[in-house]
Amino acid sequence: MSDPQTQAPAGAESPAARALSKHLPILDWGSRYDRDTLVSDLMAAVIVTIMLIPQSLAYALLAGLPAEMGLYASILPLIAYAVFGTSRPLAVGPVAVVSLMTAAAIGNLGLSDPKEYAVAAIVLALMSGLILLAMGVLRLGFLANFLSHPVIAGFITASGLIIATSQLKHILGIDASGHNLFELTTSLVTHLPETNPVTLTIGAAAMAFLFWVRKGLKPVLVRLGLGGRMADLLAKAGPVAAVAATILVTKTFALDTVGVAIVGTVPQGLPPLTIPDFDLDLWTSLLGSAVLISVIGFVESISVAQTLAAKKRQRIAPDQELIGLGAANVAASVTGGYPVTGGFARSVVNFDAGAETPAAGAFTALGICLAAFALTPLLQDLPKATLAATIMVAVLSLIDLTVLRRTWGYSKTDFAAAAATIAVTLGLGVEAGVSAGVALSILLFLFKTSRPHIAEVGLVPNTHHFRNIRRHAVQTVPTVFTLRVDESLYFANARFLEDYIYDRAAHDPRLKHIILMCSAVNEIDSSALESLEAINHRLDLLGILFHLSEVKGPVMDRLLRTHFVESLTGKIYLSQYDAAVDLGPAILEQPAARKKSA
Amino acid sequence: MSDPQTQAPAGAESPAARALSKHLPILDWGSRYDRDTLVSDLMAAVIVTIMLIPQSLAYALLAGLPAEMGLYASILPLIAYAVFGTSRPLAVGPVAVVSLMTAAAIGNLGLSDPKEYAVAAIVLALMSGLILLAMGVLRLGFLANFLSHPVIAGFITASGLIIATSQLKHILGIDASGHNLFELTTSLVTHLPETNPVTLTIGAAAMAFLFWVRKGLKPVLVRLGLGGRMADLLAKAGPVAAVAATILVTKTFALDTVGVAIVGTVPQGLPPLTIPDFDLDLWTSLLGSAVLISVIGFVESISVAQTLAAKKRQRIAPDQELIGLGAANVAASVTGGYPVTGGFARSVVNFDAGAETPAAGAFTALGICLAAFALTPLLQDLPKATLAATIMVAVLSLIDLTVLRRTWGYSKTDFAAAAATIAVTLGLGVEAGVSAGVALSILLFLFKTSRPHIAEVGLVPNTHHFRNIRRHAVQTVPTVFTLRVDESLYFANARFLEDYIYDRAAHDPRLKHIILMCSAVNEIDSSALESLEAINHRLDLLGILFHLSEVKGPVMDRLLRTHFVESLTGKIYLSQYDAAVDLGPAILEQPAARKKSA
Repeated sequence: MSDPQTQAPAGAESPAARALSKHLPILDWGSRYDRDTLVSDLMAAVIVTIMLIPQSLAYALLAGLPAEMGLYASILPLIAYAVFGTSRPLAVGPVAVVSLMTAAAIGNLGLSDPKEYAVAAIVLALMSGLILLAMGVLRLGFLANFLSHPVIAGFITASGLIIATSQLKHILGIDASGHNLFELTTSLVTHLPETNPVTLTIGAAAMAFLFWVRKGLKPVLVRLGLGGRMADLLAKAGPVAAVAATILVTKTFALDTVGVAIVGTVPQGLPPLTIPDFDLDLWTSLLGSAVLISVIGFVESISVAQTLAAKKRQRIAPDQELIGLGAANVAASVTGGYPVTGGFARSVVNFDAGAETPAAGAFTALGICLAAFALTPLLQDLPKATLAATIMVAVLSLIDLTVLRRTWGYSKTDFAAAAATIAVTLGLGVEAGVSAGVALSILLFLFKTSRPHIAEVGLVPNTHHFRNIRRHAVQTVPTVFTLRVDESLYFANARFLEDYIYDRAAHDPRLKHIILMCSAVNEIDSSALESLEAINHRLDLLGILFHLSEVKGPVMDRLLRTHFVESLTGKIYLSQYDAAVDLGPAILEQPAARKKSA
Repeated sequence: MSDPQTQAPAGAESPAARALSKHLPILDWGSRYDRDTLVSDLMAAVIVTIMLIPQSLAYALLAGLPAEMGLYASILPLIAYAVFGTSRPLAVGPVAVVSLMTAAAIGNLGLSDPKEYAVAAIVLALMSGLILLAMGVLRLGFLANFLSHPVIAGFITASGLIIATSQLKHILGIDASGHNLFELTTSLVTHLPETNPVTLTIGAAAMAFLFWVRKGLKPVLVRLGLGGRMADLLAKAGPVAAVAATILVTKTFALDTVGVAIVGTVPQGLPPLTIPDFDLDLWTSLLGSAVLISVIGFVESISVAQTLAAKKRQRIAPDQELIGLGAANVAASVTGGYPVTGGFARSVVNFDAGAETPAAGAFTALGICLAAFALTPLLQDLPKATLAATIMVAVLSLIDLTVLRRTWGYSKTDFAAAAATIAVTLGLGVEAGVSAGVALSILLFLFKTSRPHIAEVGLVPNTHHFRNIRRHAVQTVPTVFTLRVDESLYFANARFLEDYIYDRAAHDPRLKHIILMCSAVNEIDSSALESLEAINHRLDLLGILFHLSEVKGPVMDRLLRTHFVESLTGKIYLSQYDAAVDLGPAILEQPAARKKSA
């Protein structure tokens, strides 16, 4: 098999062609498409299609939408991504977390008519697409970085818990609703007596089968003579087998007449062309949700894209990925779909099955298209319990509470962010959860930088190094006080530094010099500059000279544009050693003090 | 005169007494109060009282409240601050910016009944007091640091412009309203034909007189034989003279009958005891405003308190200041006042007049109390135009647009924050303005730290120092790439570092080692740790070893608690020099390259 990445000598193309293929990646890989690549892509597409049929139906159900909208979201969006996306193995389409967020977003609107519900989902896809496109054009992909890993991990885990719980009602055949874990479980418990035993039997059997497929099918297939990789991929067809078997049973025994909820009539044929609704009120009320869905979808997609790209030394262009996902969502909105993104599980399968180019995604779209024609009449008798079982087995792999243990051991602030995200998501819902997580991460970061680590430093004997007097046996002289501040100086911590220096200066009448060692100061903003001016002025009143040392080049360039340097009572030294020897030569004769205790 | 600060040997008191006097500063200075201090404080109180009478009436007018509420806000709050505050010369009471914010906050409620208006102002004072007290108890004073200097300067300037414009209607004797500059000027222009010539004459004359007093009175007084300082202080009585003269003229010629707006009946006597309204809806709608008023008031107060304290080597305890201002606002709310804080102009006068202790504030309160008894019958005929002239002359000193020029030259992000604050305050009002300024400062800070400065470094010949290859002639070897990242590694910039390293690694097939020099890395959070793990893993796939150098003690302590150190393909070196020599000994024989251009 060829590797298109290494076949592309960048210098061989004209700049215009390179710019074009940067924005239309299909021109790049499409021009080198050959028979080998086609075979690989087709193989992968067949396997992903088999996996996607039940998933697309199930996730539409999770989003509270008609099953066919899942199929529609799995056709044109995949082709749009194939044209604009940069990840080769990414499988775009409906995914669990975004489906849950879609349900939450539309649930907030308080609609009762299922038609309005579908209209809102289509608008949500369009808004999400436009937001992603705008972020791509404005190169705002970095905004996704403000979702820290602990927040993402906490959010995915909590979403998985909510999704799994929300599907229990389909397994039990009862009514239950709620957008957070508390509402859901209360509702489930209330309605538990109404459990439909036939539905429960189907749901439980499907779940048991799917769990067995995940672990137990592969050894059987290997014993039957299949290769390990082939056995792995065939096991992905488990959900389709469950779907087929339960359709057959339900149809044969007319189980819908004994209360087994079925999918019902699914329209046959190509996706309809839909014109999204342009109602301003609807757009306004969905805006916040659309932003969250876009950012979460992008983060989920880019994570899996980068992980898979790394395995083949390929590169992902994050801003172009925004364009690709934006185009996919716009495509979803004009063909009756709902918000899509790159899914983790299907992308891994696509990669393992040998997908070489985004064409595999386009072939998958053709496969779903065929299904929409040929299979929809059969889907009428599909029990919702089977789809629920598919979802539950899929999302259980999302739930990973070890993030709490890992962050607890490493960083309490990261733990707080992850725990808050999980707690708020479970308690108040997905949108509140991810917002709380992001807000808390940023606040904790600001809080930390607003109280920077400040160390009093002394000379390590026989070196030119200055280290914290609390950690090292160092030499100091009583007339010179040197402090190293381990943070850029900016508005949030400028006053903290002032207070620290004034406290020290007020308590030590022997002081003649204070040196601020700036080796970790990457910036001094206007507020901090005013604080330094105030410190300089006040120390002057106390008869203490104020010096700086080891100021970085870019910081010094800026300071030179101000009056601070001329008004400074002391000097600016290139190295801390020069400063210390110049201001207190006795330091070289001092015995090294024992470490001071805190 | 004695200096109570230096008279207090801290070791001479028991720890319990020190803790008590920390929370009740009056115990500290009160125990050493003597006749000399009393004389100084009384002198200062007389001058500040003369200044405060017209100001308190004028600021109440600015806040849209009855004149007597300004007097009430100048009695008990001053006594409360004298008991709990830590600044000796701070003059608490109604101030211009907080009065404007009060008007904006209550204006948002859309009330028509003046009584409800007063009720809301009293609730606002109580809420502001409770918020300040809570911040003090929870030691949240650092939150005020998130108001950067450019935002404060921009906000004060824009507020001054709005206040001055808002007073023009009283000078012209017309009706006009609006909470931002656009609404105000439109309204003023519309009503301009209704200008009352007599009112305009009084207002213009008062303003001309007050401007002359500021500059021209002192030389006259000096020529009459007064000392310079005394002449300065006497000039502060200018507004009182203007008030007396215009009352006399208005009363004599019954000018209210020709359309001159007068203050009208002012109740005589002590402030009433008021029980604030506990209507939940009112509290909810005022909450945001109360937070802004508290924070802005605290920032204004602490700035002047610290400036004045520095001149006498005294210390301000910010958290105790919150308690002092909180108590003052609660006191205002139970005696018919409205939100107060420490004002700049009066505090400077108090200090210059020789105030030694907060008792000067308490004596000022007594002076205002006397005025509330003796002078209120006279105030009935005071033209509003005189008060407006007082305000306009006072706030013109607040307006300082040089902040734009200063920040433009030093830091474009600080300029953006200041300009946005001014523009939004003028265009949308004070609350939107300060919120926009704070939000933009934080966003710009996060944006900057999310794209940190990353430098490729090389060895400065004949030293152990490593510097940026773009700024210095340094030695490097082609198999070793060393980068120094000038920022802590955290969630917002972790992926940026990943991208940077992957790009570099993908483009240079000669690379064998990548060293991350961590001398400016003050923290590595969980997200950044995962990025480092990903970098390590991916470089491993490319056959490149990943090393760290100069990791700080606290950062290393944390890393050692993870699996990262054992999974690292390379080593962790104490110094960058050791790393470079170990990994590429040829570096010592390299000729120093010319500076690389960007």
